[in-house]
Amino acid sequence: MSFPGNVRIVLVAPEHPGNVGSAARALFTMGLSQLWVVTPACDPQAEEAYVLAHNAADVVRNLRICGSLAEALADTHFSVGTTRRDRRVGYPTLFPEEAAAEIRTRSDSAPMAIVFGRESSGLTNPELALCSIQSTIPAASDNHSLNLAQAVQVYCYALHRAAIADQPAPSHWKLATHVELERFYQHLADSLWKLRLKPATTMDSYVARFRRVLSRIPLEPRDLNLLHKLLSKIDELADRSHASGVTADSTPPHDNHPAK
Amino acid sequence: MSFPGNVRIVLVAPEHPGNVGSAARALFTMGLSQLWVVTPACDPQAEEAYVLAHNAADVVRNLRICGSLAEALADTHFSVGTTRRDRRVGYPTLFPEEAAAEIRTRSDSAPMAIVFGRESSGLTNPELALCSIQSTIPAASDNHSLNLAQAVQVYCYALHRAAIADQPAPSHWKLATHVELERFYQHLADSLWKLRLKPATTMDSYVARFRRVLSRIPLEPRDLNLLHKLLSKIDELADRSHASGVTADSTPPHDNHPAK
Repeated sequence: MSFPGNVRIVLVAPEHPGNVGSAARALFTMGLSQLWVVTPACDPQAEEAYVLAHNAADVVRNLRICGSLAEALADTHFSVGTTRRDRRVGYPTLFPEEAAAEIRTRSDSAPMAIVFGRESSGLTNPELALCSIQSTIPAASDNHSLNLAQAVQVYCYALHRAAIADQPAPSHWKLATHVELERFYQHLADSLWKLRLKPATTMDSYVARFRRVLSRIPLEPRDLNLLHKLLSKIDELADRSHASGVTADSTPPHDNHPAK
Repeated sequence: MSFPGNVRIVLVAPEHPGNVGSAARALFTMGLSQLWVVTPACDPQAEEAYVLAHNAADVVRNLRICGSLAEALADTHFSVGTTRRDRRVGYPTLFPEEAAAEIRTRSDSAPMAIVFGRESSGLTNPELALCSIQSTIPAASDNHSLNLAQAVQVYCYALHRAAIADQPAPSHWKLATHVELERFYQHLADSLWKLRLKPATTMDSYVARFRRVLSRIPLEPRDLNLLHKLLSKIDELADRSHASGVTADSTPPHDNHPAK
Protein backbone atom coordinates (compact mmCIF):
# COMPACT_ATOMS: atom_id res chain seq x y z
CA MET A 1 0.00 0.00 0.00
CA SER A 2 1.91 3.04 -1.18
CA PHE A 3 1.65 6.60 0.14
CA PRO A 4 -0.85 7.98 0.97
CA GLY A 5 -2.67 4.61 0.99
CA ASN A 6 -0.57 3.52 3.97
CA VAL A 7 -2.10 6.27 6.11
CA ARG A 8 -5.18 5.32 8.09
CA ILE A 9 -7.65 7.89 9.32
CA VAL A 10 -8.72 7.24 12.91
CA LEU A 11 -11.91 8.85 14.21
CA VAL A 12 -12.22 8.76 17.99
CA ALA A 13 -15.83 8.49 19.23
CA PRO A 14 -17.56 10.22 16.29
CA GLU A 15 -21.08 11.33 17.14
CA HIS A 16 -22.73 11.61 13.69
CA PRO A 17 -22.85 8.92 10.97
CA GLY A 18 -23.02 11.73 8.39
CA ASN A 19 -19.55 12.88 9.41
CA VAL A 20 -18.23 9.34 9.11
CA GLY A 21 -19.69 9.18 5.59
CA SER A 22 -18.30 12.57 4.56
CA ALA A 23 -14.92 11.61 5.98
CA ALA A 24 -15.04 8.38 3.94
CA ARG A 25 -15.66 10.42 0.80
CA ALA A 26 -12.73 12.69 1.64
CA LEU A 27 -10.43 9.68 2.11
CA PHE A 28 -11.52 7.98 -1.08
CA THR A 29 -11.21 11.09 -3.24
CA MET A 30 -7.62 11.55 -2.10
CA GLY A 31 -6.50 7.96 -2.57
CA LEU A 32 -6.87 6.70 1.01
CA SER A 33 -9.10 3.81 2.02
CA GLN A 34 -8.47 2.85 5.63
CA LEU A 35 -10.97 4.33 8.06
CA TRP A 36 -10.77 3.23 11.70
CA VAL A 37 -13.35 4.21 14.27
CA VAL A 38 -12.62 4.07 18.00
CA THR A 39 -15.54 3.55 20.43
CA PRO A 40 -18.13 5.27 18.18
CA ALA A 41 -20.85 7.30 19.87
CA CYS A 42 -23.18 6.53 16.93
CA ASP A 43 -23.63 3.78 14.37
CA PRO A 44 -20.83 4.71 11.96
CA GLN A 45 -22.37 2.49 9.30
CA ALA A 46 -25.89 3.91 9.52
CA GLU A 47 -27.72 4.73 6.28
CA GLU A 48 -26.74 8.40 6.50
CA ALA A 49 -23.05 7.45 6.41
CA TYR A 50 -23.56 5.64 3.12
CA VAL A 51 -25.56 8.53 1.64
CA LEU A 52 -22.83 11.06 2.42
CA ALA A 53 -20.03 8.70 1.42
CA HIS A 54 -21.35 8.98 -2.15
CA ASN A 55 -19.07 6.75 -4.24
CA ALA A 56 -16.95 5.80 -1.22
CA ALA A 57 -19.43 3.25 0.16
CA ASP A 58 -16.68 0.62 0.29
CA VAL A 59 -14.73 2.75 2.74
CA VAL A 60 -17.72 2.81 5.09
CA ARG A 61 -18.42 -0.89 4.54
CA ASN A 62 -14.83 -1.83 5.37
CA LEU A 63 -14.23 0.53 8.26
CA ARG A 64 -12.66 -1.01 11.37
CA ILE A 65 -14.15 -0.48 14.81
CA CYS A 66 -11.73 -0.55 17.75
CA GLY A 67 -12.20 -0.60 21.50
CA SER A 68 -9.41 1.87 22.20
CA LEU A 69 -7.11 4.34 20.49
CA ALA A 70 -4.14 2.24 21.58
CA GLU A 71 -5.60 -0.65 19.60
CA ALA A 72 -6.07 1.51 16.51
CA LEU A 73 -2.46 2.68 16.70
CA ALA A 74 -0.90 -0.68 17.69
CA ASP A 75 0.77 -1.53 14.37
CA THR A 76 1.37 2.05 13.22
CA HIS A 77 4.90 3.43 13.09
CA PHE A 78 4.02 7.07 13.41
CA SER A 79 0.86 8.94 14.26
CA VAL A 80 -0.42 12.49 14.11
CA GLY A 81 -2.93 13.71 16.68
CA THR A 82 -5.07 16.61 15.50
CA THR A 83 -6.15 19.40 17.80
CA ARG A 84 -7.78 22.78 17.53
CA ARG A 85 -5.36 24.47 19.88
CA ASP A 86 -1.91 23.96 21.32
CA ARG A 87 -3.05 21.34 23.76
CA ARG A 88 0.25 19.89 24.82
CA VAL A 89 1.72 23.22 25.72
CA GLY A 90 5.19 23.83 24.40
CA TYR A 91 4.97 20.79 22.20
CA PRO A 92 5.44 21.80 18.55
CA THR A 93 2.25 21.80 16.54
CA LEU A 94 2.64 21.17 12.82
CA PHE A 95 0.37 22.43 10.08
CA PRO A 96 -1.32 19.78 7.90
CA GLU A 97 1.19 20.03 5.04
CA GLU A 98 4.08 19.72 7.49
CA ALA A 99 2.46 16.71 9.15
CA ALA A 100 1.94 15.11 5.72
CA ALA A 101 5.60 15.71 4.91
CA GLU A 102 6.69 14.14 8.22
CA ILE A 103 4.64 11.04 7.43
CA ARG A 104 6.00 10.75 3.92
CA THR A 105 9.57 11.33 5.07
CA ARG A 106 9.33 8.39 7.44
CA SER A 107 7.99 5.79 5.05
CA ASP A 108 6.05 5.37 1.84
CA SER A 109 4.54 2.09 2.94
CA ALA A 110 4.58 1.43 6.71
CA PRO A 111 1.24 1.93 8.49
CA MET A 112 0.79 5.48 9.78
CA ALA A 113 -2.21 7.24 11.27
CA ILE A 114 -3.87 10.62 11.55
CA VAL A 115 -6.20 10.79 14.53
CA PHE A 116 -9.28 13.01 14.87
CA GLY A 117 -11.29 13.63 18.03
CA ARG A 118 -14.95 13.97 18.86
CA GLU A 119 -17.05 16.61 17.07
CA SER A 120 -17.89 18.21 20.41
CA SER A 121 -14.59 18.15 22.27
CA GLY A 122 -11.75 16.80 20.14
CA LEU A 123 -9.10 14.49 21.54
CA THR A 124 -8.34 14.35 25.25
CA ASN A 125 -4.82 15.14 26.42
CA PRO A 126 -4.07 11.46 27.18
CA GLU A 127 -5.26 10.57 23.65
CA LEU A 128 -3.04 13.26 22.13
CA ALA A 129 -0.14 11.97 24.18
CA LEU A 130 -0.50 8.55 22.53
CA CYS A 131 0.30 10.14 19.16
CA SER A 132 3.82 10.79 17.90
CA ILE A 133 3.22 14.44 17.06
CA GLN A 134 0.35 16.89 17.16
CA SER A 135 -1.00 19.00 14.33
CA THR A 136 -3.54 21.75 13.89
CA ILE A 137 -5.32 23.41 10.98
CA PRO A 138 -4.64 27.13 11.14
CA ALA A 139 -7.95 28.97 11.34
CA ALA A 140 -8.82 32.65 11.23
CA SER A 141 -9.52 32.67 14.94
CA ASP A 142 -9.50 30.25 17.86
CA ASN A 143 -13.26 30.47 18.09
CA HIS A 144 -13.71 29.21 14.56
CA SER A 145 -13.74 25.52 14.02
CA LEU A 146 -13.97 23.14 11.11
CA ASN A 147 -16.49 20.39 10.95
CA LEU A 148 -14.93 16.94 11.52
CA ALA A 149 -15.35 15.88 7.89
CA GLN A 150 -13.89 19.19 6.68
CA ALA A 151 -10.85 18.69 8.90
CA VAL A 152 -10.41 15.17 7.53
CA GLN A 153 -10.71 16.67 4.03
CA VAL A 154 -7.91 19.16 4.66
CA TYR A 155 -5.53 16.45 5.93
CA CYS A 156 -6.38 13.96 3.18
CA TYR A 157 -5.81 16.68 0.60
CA ALA A 158 -2.48 17.57 2.23
CA LEU A 159 -1.44 13.90 1.99
CA HIS A 160 -2.46 13.64 -1.65
CA ARG A 161 -0.71 16.92 -2.41
CA ALA A 162 2.46 15.55 -0.80
CA ALA A 163 2.12 12.42 -2.92
CA ILE A 164 1.92 14.39 -6.14
CA ALA A 165 4.31 17.14 -5.05
CA ASP A 166 6.79 16.11 -7.73
CA GLN A 167 4.20 16.17 -10.49
CA PRO A 168 3.53 19.37 -12.37
CA ALA A 169 0.02 20.83 -12.41
CA PRO A 170 -2.21 19.08 -14.98
CA SER A 171 -1.65 21.66 -17.68
CA HIS A 172 0.63 24.63 -17.55
CA TRP A 173 1.58 27.35 -19.97
CA LYS A 174 3.61 26.42 -23.01
CA LEU A 175 5.35 29.76 -23.08
CA ALA A 176 6.62 31.55 -26.16
CA THR A 177 10.37 32.20 -26.37
CA HIS A 178 12.10 35.56 -26.28
CA VAL A 179 12.69 35.38 -30.04
CA GLU A 180 9.00 34.69 -30.72
CA LEU A 181 8.01 37.60 -28.49
CA GLU A 182 10.49 40.00 -30.13
CA ARG A 183 9.25 38.97 -33.57
CA PHE A 184 5.77 39.90 -32.42
CA TYR A 185 6.82 43.30 -31.04
CA GLN A 186 8.60 44.02 -34.31
CA HIS A 187 5.42 43.18 -36.20
CA LEU A 188 3.47 45.41 -33.82
CA ALA A 189 5.82 48.34 -34.45
CA ASP A 190 5.57 47.84 -38.20
CA SER A 191 1.78 47.68 -38.11
CA LEU A 192 1.57 50.80 -35.97
CA TRP A 193 3.67 52.61 -38.59
CA LYS A 194 1.36 51.41 -41.32
CA LEU A 195 -1.56 52.77 -39.33
CA ARG A 196 0.34 56.10 -39.36
CA LEU A 197 0.07 56.21 -35.63
CA LYS A 198 2.20 59.09 -34.38
CA PRO A 199 3.69 58.43 -30.94
CA ALA A 200 4.45 61.50 -28.80
CA THR A 201 8.02 60.33 -28.33
CA THR A 202 9.51 57.45 -30.29
CA MET A 203 7.86 54.34 -31.65
CA ASP A 204 10.10 52.26 -29.38
CA SER A 205 8.78 53.99 -26.28
CA TYR A 206 5.25 53.61 -27.62
CA VAL A 207 5.73 49.87 -28.19
CA ALA A 208 7.20 49.74 -24.69
CA ARG A 209 3.76 50.61 -23.37
CA PHE A 210 2.35 47.55 -25.10
CA ARG A 211 5.25 45.52 -23.74
CA ARG A 212 4.33 46.74 -20.29
CA VAL A 213 0.86 45.25 -20.67
CA LEU A 214 1.68 42.09 -22.58
CA SER A 215 4.74 41.08 -20.58
CA ARG A 216 2.44 40.54 -17.59
CA ILE A 217 0.73 37.72 -19.47
CA PRO A 218 2.16 34.23 -19.82
CA LEU A 219 1.93 34.28 -23.65
CA GLU A 220 1.91 31.05 -25.63
CA PRO A 221 2.94 30.75 -29.31
CA ARG A 222 -0.71 30.29 -30.27
CA ASP A 223 -1.61 33.54 -28.50
CA LEU A 224 1.07 35.28 -30.56
CA ASN A 225 -0.30 33.66 -33.72
CA LEU A 226 -3.69 35.14 -32.90
CA LEU A 227 -2.15 38.60 -32.49
CA HIS A 228 0.03 38.23 -35.61
CA LYS A 229 -3.10 37.38 -37.56
CA LEU A 230 -4.85 40.50 -36.28
CA LEU A 231 -1.83 42.65 -37.16
CA SER A 232 -1.68 41.11 -40.64
CA LYS A 233 -5.30 42.09 -41.19
CA ILE A 234 -4.44 45.63 -40.12
CA ASP A 235 -1.42 45.59 -42.46
CA GLU A 236 -3.60 44.45 -45.33
CA LEU A 237 -6.19 47.14 -44.74
CA ALA A 238 -3.55 49.85 -44.35
CA ASP A 239 -1.69 48.80 -47.50
CA ARG A 240 -4.93 48.76 -49.47
CA SER A 241 -6.13 52.14 -48.24
CA HIS A 242 -2.76 53.81 -48.81
CA ALA A 243 -2.63 52.34 -52.32
CA SER A 244 -6.07 53.78 -53.11
CA GLY A 245 -5.09 57.15 -51.66
CA VAL A 246 -7.55 56.88 -48.81
CA THR A 247 -5.53 57.87 -45.76
CA ALA A 248 -6.79 58.72 -42.38
CA ASP A 249 -3.98 61.17 -42.00
CA SER A 250 -2.11 63.18 -44.60
CA THR A 251 1.23 62.90 -42.83
CA PRO A 252 3.57 60.75 -44.88
CA PRO A 253 4.32 57.43 -43.26
CA HIS A 254 7.56 56.78 -41.39
CA ASP A 255 8.22 60.46 -40.68
CA ASN A 256 8.83 59.68 -37.08
CA HIS A 257 10.52 56.35 -37.56
CA PRO A 258 13.61 56.19 -35.37
CA ALA A 259 16.88 55.53 -37.16
CA LYS A 260 17.44 51.80 -37.37
CA MET B 1 -11.45 44.19 3.51
CA SER B 2 -8.01 42.62 3.51
CA PHE B 3 -6.98 39.28 2.01
CA PRO B 4 -8.59 36.76 2.11
CA GLY B 5 -11.65 38.78 3.20
CA ASN B 6 -11.75 40.44 -0.22
CA VAL B 7 -12.44 37.08 -1.87
CA ARG B 8 -16.09 36.18 -2.34
CA ILE B 9 -17.22 32.61 -2.77
CA VAL B 10 -19.81 32.26 -5.52
CA LEU B 11 -22.01 29.16 -5.62
CA VAL B 12 -23.81 28.68 -8.93
CA ALA B 13 -27.22 27.01 -8.59
CA PRO B 14 -26.55 24.99 -5.43
CA GLU B 15 -29.07 22.20 -4.92
CA HIS B 16 -28.83 21.53 -1.16
CA PRO B 17 -29.14 24.09 1.67
CA GLY B 18 -26.87 21.85 3.77
CA ASN B 19 -24.04 22.44 1.33
CA VAL B 20 -24.61 26.18 1.46
CA GLY B 21 -24.41 26.01 5.27
CA SER B 22 -21.28 23.85 5.27
CA ALA B 23 -19.70 26.19 2.74
CA ALA B 24 -20.55 29.15 5.00
CA ARG B 25 -18.78 27.41 7.88
CA ALA B 26 -15.74 26.79 5.69
CA LEU B 27 -15.61 30.48 4.70
CA PHE B 28 -16.01 31.77 8.22
CA THR B 29 -13.38 29.48 9.71
CA MET B 30 -10.84 30.70 7.20
CA GLY B 31 -11.53 34.41 7.58
CA LEU B 32 -13.88 34.93 4.62
CA SER B 33 -17.42 36.22 4.92
CA GLN B 34 -18.85 36.97 1.47
CA LEU B 35 -21.03 34.21 0.10
CA TRP B 36 -22.88 34.88 -3.18
CA VAL B 37 -25.41 32.46 -4.58
CA VAL B 38 -26.41 32.54 -8.26
CA THR B 39 -29.90 31.27 -9.25
CA PRO B 40 -30.15 28.78 -6.37
CA ALA B 41 -31.96 25.50 -7.05
CA CYS B 42 -32.94 25.34 -3.36
CA ASP B 43 -33.63 27.76 -0.52
CA PRO B 44 -30.04 28.62 0.44
CA GLN B 45 -31.26 30.06 3.73
CA ALA B 46 -33.37 27.08 4.76
CA GLU B 47 -33.11 25.84 8.34
CA GLU B 48 -30.62 23.13 7.34
CA ALA B 49 -28.20 25.75 6.05
CA TYR B 50 -28.15 27.42 9.47
CA VAL B 51 -27.71 24.11 11.27
CA LEU B 52 -24.68 23.18 9.20
CA ALA B 53 -23.25 26.70 9.25
CA HIS B 54 -22.71 26.21 13.02
CA ASN B 55 -21.19 29.47 14.25
CA ALA B 56 -21.22 31.01 10.75
CA ALA B 57 -24.95 31.83 10.79
CA ASP B 58 -24.16 35.45 9.86
CA VAL B 59 -22.59 34.31 6.61
CA VAL B 60 -25.82 32.52 5.68
CA ARG B 61 -27.95 35.44 6.86
CA ASN B 62 -25.96 37.92 4.77
CA LEU B 63 -25.51 35.85 1.63
CA ARG B 64 -26.28 37.63 -1.64
CA ILE B 65 -28.55 36.07 -4.25
CA CYS B 66 -27.88 36.99 -7.89
CA GLY B 67 -29.78 36.40 -11.10
CA SER B 68 -26.68 35.56 -13.13
CA LEU B 69 -23.00 34.74 -12.76
CA ALA B 70 -22.16 37.91 -14.70
CA GLU B 71 -23.93 39.90 -11.99
CA ALA B 72 -22.00 38.12 -9.22
CA LEU B 73 -18.71 38.87 -10.96
CA ALA B 74 -19.52 42.44 -12.11
CA ASP B 75 -17.32 44.34 -9.66
CA THR B 76 -14.64 41.66 -9.24
CA HIS B 77 -11.18 42.23 -10.70
CA PHE B 78 -10.21 38.58 -11.04
CA SER B 79 -12.10 35.34 -10.77
CA VAL B 80 -11.28 31.65 -10.52
CA GLY B 81 -13.67 29.07 -11.98
CA THR B 82 -13.41 25.65 -10.40
CA THR B 83 -13.82 22.46 -12.37
CA ARG B 84 -13.31 18.77 -11.87
CA ARG B 85 -11.56 18.24 -15.15
CA ASP B 86 -9.75 20.21 -17.78
CA ARG B 87 -12.89 21.65 -19.25
CA ARG B 88 -11.48 24.44 -21.36
CA VAL B 89 -9.07 22.17 -23.14
CA GLY B 90 -5.56 23.52 -23.42
CA TYR B 91 -6.34 26.26 -20.96
CA PRO B 92 -4.01 26.01 -17.96
CA THR B 93 -5.65 24.64 -14.84
CA LEU B 94 -4.16 25.77 -11.56
CA PHE B 95 -4.19 23.86 -8.29
CA PRO B 96 -5.93 25.57 -5.33
CA GLU B 97 -2.71 26.90 -3.77
CA GLU B 98 -1.61 28.31 -7.11
CA ALA B 99 -5.00 29.94 -7.63
CA ALA B 100 -4.81 31.44 -4.13
CA ALA B 101 -1.35 32.80 -4.91
CA GLU B 102 -2.61 34.34 -8.19
CA ILE B 103 -5.38 36.09 -6.29
CA ARG B 104 -3.07 37.39 -3.61
CA THR B 105 -0.48 38.52 -6.15
CA ARG B 106 -3.07 40.69 -7.87
CA SER B 107 -4.42 42.53 -4.86
CA ASP B 108 -4.83 42.31 -1.12
CA SER B 109 -8.05 44.29 -1.15
CA ALA B 110 -9.86 44.49 -4.52
CA PRO B 111 -12.91 42.22 -4.88
CA MET B 112 -12.03 38.78 -6.28
CA ALA B 113 -14.11 35.62 -6.63
CA ILE B 114 -13.84 31.86 -6.60
CA VAL B 115 -16.76 30.24 -8.40
CA PHE B 116 -18.18 26.77 -7.73
CA GLY B 117 -20.71 24.92 -9.87
CA ARG B 118 -23.72 22.73 -9.22
CA GLU B 119 -23.35 19.62 -7.04
CA SER B 120 -24.53 17.47 -9.95
CA SER B 121 -22.76 18.93 -12.95
CA GLY B 122 -20.37 21.72 -11.97
CA LEU B 123 -19.99 24.87 -14.05
CA THR B 124 -20.96 24.96 -17.72
CA ASN B 125 -18.31 25.88 -20.27
CA PRO B 126 -19.83 29.35 -20.83
CA GLU B 127 -19.79 29.92 -17.06
CA LEU B 128 -16.13 28.84 -16.85
CA ALA B 129 -15.34 31.16 -19.74
CA LEU B 130 -16.62 34.12 -17.70
CA CYS B 131 -13.89 33.49 -15.13
CA SER B 132 -10.34 34.80 -15.47
CA ILE B 133 -8.69 31.43 -14.88
CA GLN B 134 -9.75 27.89 -14.11
CA SER B 135 -8.63 25.69 -11.22
CA THR B 136 -9.08 22.11 -10.11
CA ILE B 137 -8.47 20.13 -6.94
CA PRO B 138 -6.18 17.23 -7.78
CA ALA B 139 -7.91 13.98 -6.83
CA ALA B 140 -6.73 10.41 -6.80
CA SER B 141 -8.74 9.63 -9.91
CA ASP B 142 -11.08 11.43 -12.29
CA ASN B 143 -13.99 9.37 -11.02
CA HIS B 144 -13.52 10.62 -7.49
CA SER B 145 -15.15 13.86 -6.58
CA LEU B 146 -15.35 16.11 -3.57
CA ASN B 147 -18.59 17.28 -2.14
CA LEU B 148 -19.31 20.96 -2.90
CA ALA B 149 -18.68 22.07 0.69
CA GLN B 150 -15.46 20.06 0.85
CA ALA B 151 -14.23 21.74 -2.32
CA VAL B 152 -15.08 25.15 -0.86
CA GLN B 153 -13.17 24.10 2.28
CA VAL B 154 -10.04 23.24 0.31
CA TYR B 155 -10.02 26.61 -1.50
CA CYS B 156 -10.79 28.65 1.63
CA TYR B 157 -7.99 26.85 3.44
CA ALA B 158 -5.62 27.54 0.53
CA LEU B 159 -6.53 31.25 0.74
CA HIS B 160 -5.99 31.37 4.49
CA ARG B 161 -2.72 29.48 4.12
CA ALA B 162 -1.58 32.04 1.53
CA ALA B 163 -2.54 34.82 3.95
CA ILE B 164 -0.42 33.37 6.75
CA ALA B 165 2.35 32.05 4.50
CA ASP B 166 4.84 34.46 6.03
CA GLN B 167 3.95 33.49 9.58
CA PRO B 168 5.80 30.64 11.22
CA ALA B 169 3.86 27.62 12.50
CA PRO B 170 2.29 28.30 15.92
CA SER B 171 5.09 26.67 17.86
CA HIS B 172 8.27 25.21 16.51
CA TRP B 173 11.32 23.62 18.07
CA LYS B 174 13.64 25.80 20.07
CA LEU B 175 16.68 23.73 19.16
CA ALA B 176 19.75 23.18 21.31
CA THR B 177 23.10 24.43 19.93
CA HIS B 178 26.05 22.30 18.88
CA VAL B 179 27.89 23.23 22.07
CA GLU B 180 24.94 22.18 24.23
CA LEU B 181 24.70 18.88 22.37
CA GLU B 182 28.45 18.18 22.66
CA ARG B 183 28.33 18.95 26.37
CA PHE B 184 25.61 16.34 26.67
CA TYR B 185 27.51 13.69 24.70
CA GLN B 186 30.57 14.33 26.90
CA HIS B 187 28.42 13.83 30.00
CA LEU B 188 27.02 10.64 28.43
CA ALA B 189 30.53 9.27 27.80
CA ASP B 190 31.57 10.09 31.38
CA SER B 191 28.47 8.44 32.83
CA LEU B 192 28.98 5.34 30.74
CA TRP B 193 32.54 5.10 32.14
CA LYS B 194 31.22 5.44 35.65
CA LEU B 195 28.80 2.60 34.92
CA ARG B 196 31.91 0.62 33.91
CA LEU B 197 30.28 -0.16 30.61
CA LYS B 198 32.90 -1.80 28.40
CA PRO B 199 32.38 -1.00 24.70
CA ALA B 200 33.62 -3.60 22.22
CA THR B 201 35.67 -0.97 20.43
CA THR B 202 36.21 2.52 21.84
CA MET B 203 33.94 4.65 23.97
CA ASP B 204 33.79 7.18 21.14
CA SER B 205 32.37 4.68 18.71
CA TYR B 206 29.96 3.51 21.39
CA VAL B 207 28.74 7.05 22.00
CA ALA B 208 28.46 7.44 18.22
CA ARG B 209 25.67 4.88 18.32
CA PHE B 210 23.76 7.10 20.72
CA ARG B 211 24.52 10.07 18.48
CA ARG B 212 23.05 8.14 15.57
CA VAL B 213 19.74 7.82 17.42
CA LEU B 214 19.61 11.20 19.12
CA SER B 215 20.71 13.28 16.14
CA ARG B 216 17.48 12.28 14.39
CA ILE B 217 15.52 14.14 17.06
CA PRO B 218 15.07 17.90 17.11
CA LEU B 219 16.43 18.26 20.68
CA GLU B 220 15.63 21.32 22.74
CA PRO B 221 17.71 22.54 25.72
CA ARG B 222 15.02 21.35 28.12
CA ASP B 223 15.20 17.86 26.58
CA LEU B 224 18.95 17.88 27.25
CA ASN B 225 18.34 19.05 30.82
CA LEU B 226 16.08 16.06 31.30
CA LEU B 227 18.79 13.73 30.04
CA HIS B 228 21.54 15.50 32.03
CA LYS B 229 19.44 15.01 35.15
CA LEU B 230 19.10 11.29 34.42
CA LEU B 231 22.85 10.98 33.83
CA SER B 232 23.58 12.87 37.08
CA LYS B 233 21.42 10.37 38.95
CA ILE B 234 23.40 7.56 37.36
CA ASP B 235 26.67 9.31 38.26
CA GLU B 236 25.54 9.69 41.88
CA LEU B 237 24.57 6.04 42.15
CA ALA B 238 27.80 4.90 40.52
CA ASP B 239 29.98 7.12 42.74
CA ARG B 240 28.20 5.89 45.84
CA SER B 241 28.43 2.21 44.95
CA HIS B 242 32.10 2.46 43.98
CA ALA B 243 32.86 4.28 47.24
CA SER B 244 31.14 1.54 49.24
CA GLY B 245 33.00 -1.13 47.30
CA VAL B 246 29.82 -2.44 45.71
CA THR B 247 30.74 -2.74 42.06
CA ALA B 248 28.82 -4.49 39.40
CA ASP B 249 32.05 -5.40 37.77
CA SER B 250 35.49 -6.00 39.26
CA THR B 251 37.32 -4.41 36.37
CA PRO B 252 38.91 -1.15 37.51
CA PRO B 253 37.28 1.90 35.99
CA HIS B 254 38.82 3.70 33.05
CA ASP B 255 40.82 0.71 31.86
CA ASN B 256 39.47 1.22 28.41
CA HIS B 257 39.41 4.98 28.41
CA PRO B 258 40.92 6.30 25.19
CA ALA B 259 43.87 8.64 25.63
CA LYS B 260 42.62 12.17 25.86
